[in-house]
Order: sequence, then structure tokens, then C-alpha cells
Amino acid sequence: MQPKTPSESRTVMTDLVLPSETNPLNNLFGGELLARMDRAASIAARRHSRRITVTASVNHVAFNHSVPLGSVVTVEAAISRAFKTSMEVFIDVWIEDRFSGERTKANEAIYTFVAVDETGKPTEVPPIVPETDLEKERYEAALRRKQLSLVLAGKMKPSDATELKALFTKEP
Amino acid sequence: MQPKTPSESRTVMTDLVLPSETNPLNNLFGGELLARMDRAASIAARRHSRRITVTASVNHVAFNHSVPLGSVVTVEAAISRAFKTSMEVFIDVWIEDRFSGERTKANEAIYTFVAVDETGKPTEVPPIVPETDLEKERYEAALRRKQLSLVLAGKMKPSDATELKALFTKEP
Amino acid sequence: MQPKTPSESRTVMTDLVLPSETNPLNNLFGGELLARMDRAASIAARRHSRRITVTASVNHVAFNHSVPLGSVVTVEAAISRAFKTSMEVFIDVWIEDRFSGERTKANEAIYTFVAVDETGKPTEVPPIVPETDLEKERYEAALRRKQLSLVLAGKMKPSDATELKALFTKEP
Amino acid sequence: MQPKTPSESRTVMTDLVLPSETNPLNNLFGGELLARMDRAASIAARRHSRRITVTASVNHVAFNHSVPLGSVVTVEAAISRAFKTSMEVFIDVWIEDRFSGERTKANEAIYTFVAVDETGKPTEVPPIVPETDLEKERYEAALRRKQLSLVLAGKMKPSDATELKALFTKEP
Amino acid sequence: MQPKTPSESRTVMTDLVLPSETNPLNNLFGGELLARMDRAASIAARRHSRRITVTASVNHVAFNHSVPLGSVVTVEAAISRAFKTSMEVFIDVWIEDRFSGERTKANEAIYTFVAVDETGKPTEVPPIVPETDLEKERYEAALRRKQLSLVLAGKMKPSDATELKALFTKEP
Amino acid sequence: MQPKTPSESRTVMTDLVLPSETNPLNNLFGGELLARMDRAASIAARRHSRRITVTASVNHVAFNHSVPLGSVVTVEAAISRAFKTSMEVFIDVWIEDRFSGERTKANEAIYTFVAVDETGKPTEVPPIVPETDLEKERYEAALRRKQLSLVLAGKMKPSDATELKALFTKEP
Repeated sequence: MQPKTPSESRTVMTDLVLPSETNPLNNLFGGELLARMDRAASIAARRHSRRITVTASVNHVAFNHSVPLGSVVTVEAAISRAFKTSMEVFIDVWIEDRFSGERTKANEAIYTFVAVDETGKPTEVPPIVPETDLEKERYEAALRRKQLSLVLAGKMKPSDATELKALFTKEP
Repeated sequence: MQPKTPSESRTVMTDLVLPSETNPLNNLFGGELLARMDRAASIAARRHSRRITVTASVNHVAFNHSVPLGSVVTVEAAISRAFKTSMEVFIDVWIEDRFSGERTKANEAIYTFVAVDETGKPTEVPPIVPETDLEKERYEAALRRKQLSLVLAGKMKPSDATELKALFTKEP
Repeated sequence: MQPKTPSESRTVMTDLVLPSETNPLNNLFGGELLARMDRAASIAARRHSRRITVTASVNHVAFNHSVPLGSVVTVEAAISRAFKTSMEVFIDVWIEDRFSGERTKANEAIYTFVAVDETGKPTEVPPIVPETDLEKERYEAALRRKQLSLVLAGKMKPSDATELKALFTKEP
Repeated sequence: MQPKTPSESRTVMTDLVLPSETNPLNNLFGGELLARMDRAASIAARRHSRRITVTASVNHVAFNHSVPLGSVVTVEAAISRAFKTSMEVFIDVWIEDRFSGERTKANEAIYTFVAVDETGKPTEVPPIVPETDLEKERYEAALRRKQLSLVLAGKMKPSDATELKALFTKEP
Repeated sequence: MQPKTPSESRTVMTDLVLPSETNPLNNLFGGELLARMDRAASIAARRHSRRITVTASVNHVAFNHSVPLGSVVTVEAAISRAFKTSMEVFIDVWIEDRFSGERTKANEAIYTFVAVDETGKPTEVPPIVPETDLEKERYEAALRRKQLSLVLAGKMKPSDATELKALFTKEP
Repeated sequence: MQPKTPSESRTVMTDLVLPSETNPLNNLFGGELLARMDRAASIAARRHSRRITVTASVNHVAFNHSVPLGSVVTVEAAISRAFKTSMEVFIDVWIEDRFSGERTKANEAIYTFVAVDETGKPTEVPPIVPETDLEKERYEAALRRKQLSLVLAGKMKPSDATELKALFTKEP
């Protein structure tokens, strides 16, 4: 299969924070942001694979900044690494000050999607070729995250997770 | 502060999968399930802390089984470990066969919440005392997950993550 | 058919009151609570019958306490009595104080569901055997309510509603 | 206070049945219809009282006909009787065949609303003067329903419910 | 085909403005009102044609008055003119003061719908016969609007738009 | 005020068509698309003005292609011309074939927004300087559309609408 670049799957979803999506502090509910990121990530995964895609796991989401009612929120998703039938999607969330227009990074998240056929069976996806420095860095880290995920799920022995092991053993 | 048990925060949210919540394969959207788990987990965190609580991170979610339209879905959330101002919430998701009534474990997720006062400032939460074997096991693992989270965020040196390090170095 | 107990159909739906569900006094809309109770009751009816179930009637709902924005609301539904193809579902609604955790009974409602097959035709359901005192009391009263419902709908002569008649004639 | 007629509060809400509002048989969910009726009834109660109004109880709802996806549904609500601070609202629900345009009565419901001031305290409402035969009939029956409601809630002795008692004792 | 009058398609949709539908000034979002008008207009178009109808264009909408949270909003739609397979729908929007009950015209909109068969192919609709003065005036203006629409879309030469041309050339 | 370019306000909103947003032909409801376009356009207007913005009118929307369930829809909005306190926003809607990834132009719409201060009073916005050929063309046409809008609203005499008049009179 023809490799693709992350920019071919990049998906931009800019929208408002509506009153129905806020918590008692008048900030965007975590759950609503998780749902938006899932939709953006599923579009990125579909653009990369040209298949139906389903969420396989959410690997990490950090809610660093609260997102107030009325904010303009931009969710940007792109494939960071493709494996055989699965894709890691890296998601950046930005908010924009209403008056100055200044953009602030509010969150980062990593989801994994699987491409499936019409019967729900996993199906192969194209490899990815990172271009920018940030894309390359995320591409490298994706392998460590995959090993970690397999170790935590009991599907890989820690001793086989060579990338991860190095991280903890190379220290003096 | 008076310690609490996980069962004091256990939250049960049973609901249907409605047509508006499904993807093209007629299964529950990942994003919608993430939102439901966030609401259940936030109630569990509130029951433990008796404070306003906000989502700090989603540590891991595995979507092992798809959840078809019309299913009865039960989301169960309980505090697995309390730290100074934060709480790890462990979430189990079950689906129930419409005709046999048989329950299947569909997903597992781990979220972290922070208790805050009315101004959004983090505030202390009670310690937790696990009771059952499963609660004890999740309590122990929560510390490794916290170290991992700090290491991945660059806030802890791998060499200081003693629990994690052991995992990768004790192998022969 | 094998009889069942009310506890086999008991359904617990705990959820938040979101901003989109409130009226101008910042309390949960009656209509939204009616919809939640309908979903919980339909799950209880399905658990009892293991069939598709449809709402046949709402027999009585009293909104005794308002439910403020941000509340944790627990809707508990269980079959109180089964007839040939229909089931009376008794629903209790509780709210929980955010800070003290104290639970208050906010509402009570009675819905009737019918079990149907895939074509929508009514189909038989198992009998029910009440266990606790409260379950027994609700089981007894369900017959009076059914007679009342039939009388009001013109499907039963008041003189044949023996249970009801006694209520109004036994007084000195 | 100046009396009003039912037609002064009559409220017509015609809308479609959208895919997100249907059950597994592709018919309108009972809960969604309950919510629409609550909104229409609350508007009728506001038109009669010119006050904030809150749902006090749902007295009876019969779901006689299912309402298929894509239907045009008309909910008509009008005050059937006013008491001191409360109003009984009678609701008729019609569906309309897409092709012939023929209207069918699908449901009937009776809700009770209370008028309140800005602090939530019950406040007086105008009396009502029924005009048509149907309005007069519903006006008369409203008193029996109120007595029934008070008896069932244990707030009135059956022997004092003269209207109701007659219903059960006048039979030969 | 048998002609119809505008009153045969008149559709009344009265509903509340809920908190989830408001913008940062606490008024109804333009987008939500556009969606309600589209549903009401599609019902009017269906009532006239007794066919499936799809939105073809929105010709003009003026938001003259803001619609505050908690308002009672009435959307009234009726066919103003029928062409071969399309219908112009004229929509009036009224709001009602909570306390005085006084109605104010808030908006006016013009949508065009096309009647289609089950495959989506345009299909003929009955002619319309306006009755009141306002209906006649809107009927006449509809032809100018249709020419304008065709000219702006480049499907009609300005010189052929006789009605429109007169408007701009008859001035001294 | 410092002029801005259209690209400074360009807003991209990519999202899925969910089952709850479809009509009986399984295509996106016109009303839902109108609401999405309104949100995207209001963000573009806010980016240009750095003010609260409210929808003033919808000038034209043509629904040329239906948008099927499950589509990826991209709404792109940018200011086409700024007047004293109002802004014309031009919106392009694209759909993307799930398998080939090919983009098709589905709709075009023109909305007008007004910038307001916290009390709702109109307030001045920066001028705009179009850059590309398409931006220049839309900028020119915006004046004709404004004249047309004023003529149709009876706020300008046709004889004063010099740009429009030329369109109808220059033909031989």
C-alpha cells in the first residue's frame, strides 16, 4: 500500500462551547471534549485508511486548561503512526481568546483506531511517513506507547518491550 | 480526614443505547461512551470528596467489545485510589443481552479527577481504604499508573519511578 | 413461566442534571425527568420480560421536590406487578446533596409497559413474587390502580371494580 | 381575577419525529413524547396564569397508538380547570398520515401545573370558564380527578370525596 | 391536480427557548431558529404536496428581534406559491411576552422546498390559490423572488426577468 | 481600524453526519446544516471583529447536493465584506467520499452578522482587504447583495441601487 503523510489525514474541527456542554464551573465538560476528539480522530483515521474506523482505545488525555463557555475550540487530529490494522491518532486542542484572538494549547490526547470492513473485521491500513520534526518525534514515541499498552494489557512481557525497558534501565 | 471505602463512591448508571448515539456500524460511538463514563466517574469523585470535581486526565480506555444499538449498558465507577487532591476512578462497563439477560464486560477505563473549591483551586480529599481483593489490586496498580503518568509528562525521572522500574528490571 | 422477584428487574440510573435540562428556575425540567424515568422503567420491564417493551401508560407522577442544576439524581425502577402481557413499574427518584451526601426522595412515579414481539404484538410475561414489605404493599395496590385505570377508560364497570369499590364504601 | 376560557391558553406544537427520538421498533419513544407534552402543557399553563409554572404531577397518560419515525405529530394543550394555584392541563396528541393527510388521535394526557413567583412560592391563578361541550365535560371530570389524586396521596378521606364516591356507590 | 389554499398547509409550532439553545447574550441562537423554521416549513411543504420534501434553498431570513431564553416562540409556516415541483414557504416567527402575553413579530423567512419521490426525483405538486390579501401579496412577490434567484444563479438572463426588470427601470 | 484579510477569519469545521441529524431519506437535515453554518459563520465574524456577533440575516443558501448519513462534512466560513458594523460571511460546504476521499462542493451560503457590545448595541468592525481572485469577486458582489437586501426590505429606493440597476438595464 502507498504510504501517506500525517498532513493527508489532518482534520480541523473548530466549534463553539455551547451552554448545554458546560459543567457547574461553566467550563466545557470533560466528556463532551472527549466526544469531540473522538469524532475528529475518527475522521483522521478514515482519511488515512479510507475505511470504516472504530475507536480501539484512548491512550492518554490530559486536561491541562479548562475551556470556558463561549470559547472557540479547535480540535486538530492527525495520524501519528500506522501499524498493521490500527492507527495512533494524536490530537491537539486549542482555545482562542475572544478578544485578543490569542491561541492557547488546552489539551493533548492520543486515541487508537482500527480500520474494519463492512462486517467489522480489521483490515490493513497504509504505512505513514512523518515529515516535520514534531511528526517524527510523535512517530517514534508511538512505538513506546504501543509496547506500554501491550505490557499493561498483559499481551507482551516487559522483557520484550525493548524500547520501554531502555527508558527505565539506561539511567545510572 | 476520615478515610472512605470504594463502595462509598460506587456509582451505577444504567441506560439504553439510543439511535442518536450510534456509528455507521450501528454500535455506540466511542465518544458517547467516553462522555457517559466521564459523568459517572465525576459522580463517584464527588461522592468520595464531597467537592466540585473536574476531569484531570483519562489514563486508559480499552474498547474491547462493540455495544450495539438498543443495548442496556451499565457503567460502574468507583474511586480506586486517592492522592492528595486527586482521585483515580476505575470504570467498568457491562452490556446485557436483551433476551438472555447475560452480562458481558465491554470496557474498562481509568480517569483521574481533581477536587476543587468554588474558585477552581485544588483541595484535599479523604484517603481511601480498599476492602475487596479486586479493590486492593486496583489500589496497588494505581501508584504505578501515577508514576507512569508523571514520567510520560516529564514531571518525574524514570529512575525515581521505583515501582515501574522494578517491573522492567526484575526480569531475568 | 418461571416467576421472578422485583429485585431481578431493579434498574439504577444515576446521572447529573446538566445545564441543557433545566427550566427558568434552574431546576430539572419535568419533561426531562419523565424521559429518564421512561428509559429506566423500560429497562426494568425488559429485564423482567426479556422482550421488547413499549410504554402503555403513565399512571401517576408526583413532582414533590424540585431538582436543582448540578444535582446527582438516582432513578430506581422495578416491576411492582405483572399482569398477562403488561407490567406495572414503580419508580423512585432520589437526589443527593452535593456536600453532605444526604439522599432525599424527590419523586415517585408509576408507568405501565407492555411486552411485544418483533411485530409489535403483545406477548406474555412471567408472574412476579414480591419479597419485601414495600414490594408486597406496592403489589397489592397495583390491582386497585389497574381497576381504576380500566374504570376511567370505560373498559370496566365501577360495580365490577371490587377492590376500588370497597375503598369508597367501607367508610362509615 | 378575570376568568379566562380554555381557548385563551390553547397551545399547538406541531413537529416531526426525528431519528434520534425513536425506540427499537422505530416509533417515537414514550419518554420523548412525555417531554414534548410537558413543554406544550407548561406553555398553556403560562398563557393562563401569566406566571412561571412548574409541573406538579402527571395524572394520566395513555399511549394508544405508536407514532412512527417521520410522522408529523401535533400536541395540543389547554387548561381544563383552574384551582387556587394549580391548573389541570388536558393534552391531545394527533398524528397525520404523510400521504393522505388524515389525522388520527394517538394519545391523551393530563398534567397538573402550579403557578409560582420568582422565589418558587405558589401564587393564585384566574378561574376558567369552559365554552364547548368537550371543555365542559373535561371541566367536570377534573374535580373527580383532583379528589382521586388527593385520596391516593392520603390527603383526603375517601368518604369526603363525594364526587368519586357517587361513581362507585350509585350502581344497583 | 386539485389546487389547494395556503391555509391547508399552515403549520403552527409553538415551543420554549431552552437553555441549551442560547448564545452568550442569552438569546436564541440564529442556527437553532433556522433549524426550527426548516422543520416547520418542511411540514407545510409536505401538507401541500403529500410527498417527501427536501429543502432546496433558503431565500431570505431577517433576524429583526432577539429571542430571549425562556420565551414562548411560535413559528408559522404556509405555502406562498407552488411552482412545478417546488414550493415557496413563507415563515412568520412570533414571540410572546411571558407576563403580558403580548405577541411581537420577531422574524420572517422564506424557504424553498422540492417534492421528491422515494428515489429523490422531483415530482409535481398541486397549484395554490391564495385567499387573503396577505396571501395574494406574497403569491405575487414569489415570482419576483424566483426570477431573482434564477438570475443570481446564472440560470436566467436579467433581460428575461421581466417582473424584476420593471422594478428597476420604471423609476423616473 | 486596521484592515484584515479574509484568511484571518477563515474557519474550518469538519465533522460527521450523525444518525440524529438525518431526514427520512437518510440525508443531513437542511435545518441541521443551517445551524452548523451559523456556528461556523459566527466564529468567522468573531475572528474578524473580536466582538460578540449575532446573526442579522441569511441572504441565500442553496442546497445543491444532499449530504448522506456518515459523510464527512467540511464547513468553511470567511468574511467576504465588512460594512460599518456588519459583516457578510461567505460559507462553502464540502463533502468527502468515504472511500475515494474525493471532495465535492455541496452547498454555498451567505449570512450577515452584526458585531455588538455587551449590551447588544452594534459596534464598528475593521475593513477587509480581499486577496485572491475569488475573494475579490465575492467582495464586489457583496455590495450588490446589500443593495438588494435594502431594496427588498424597503429601506432603499430601487433607483438608488446603482449597482443592481445596471445589472438589469445594461442589456441591449
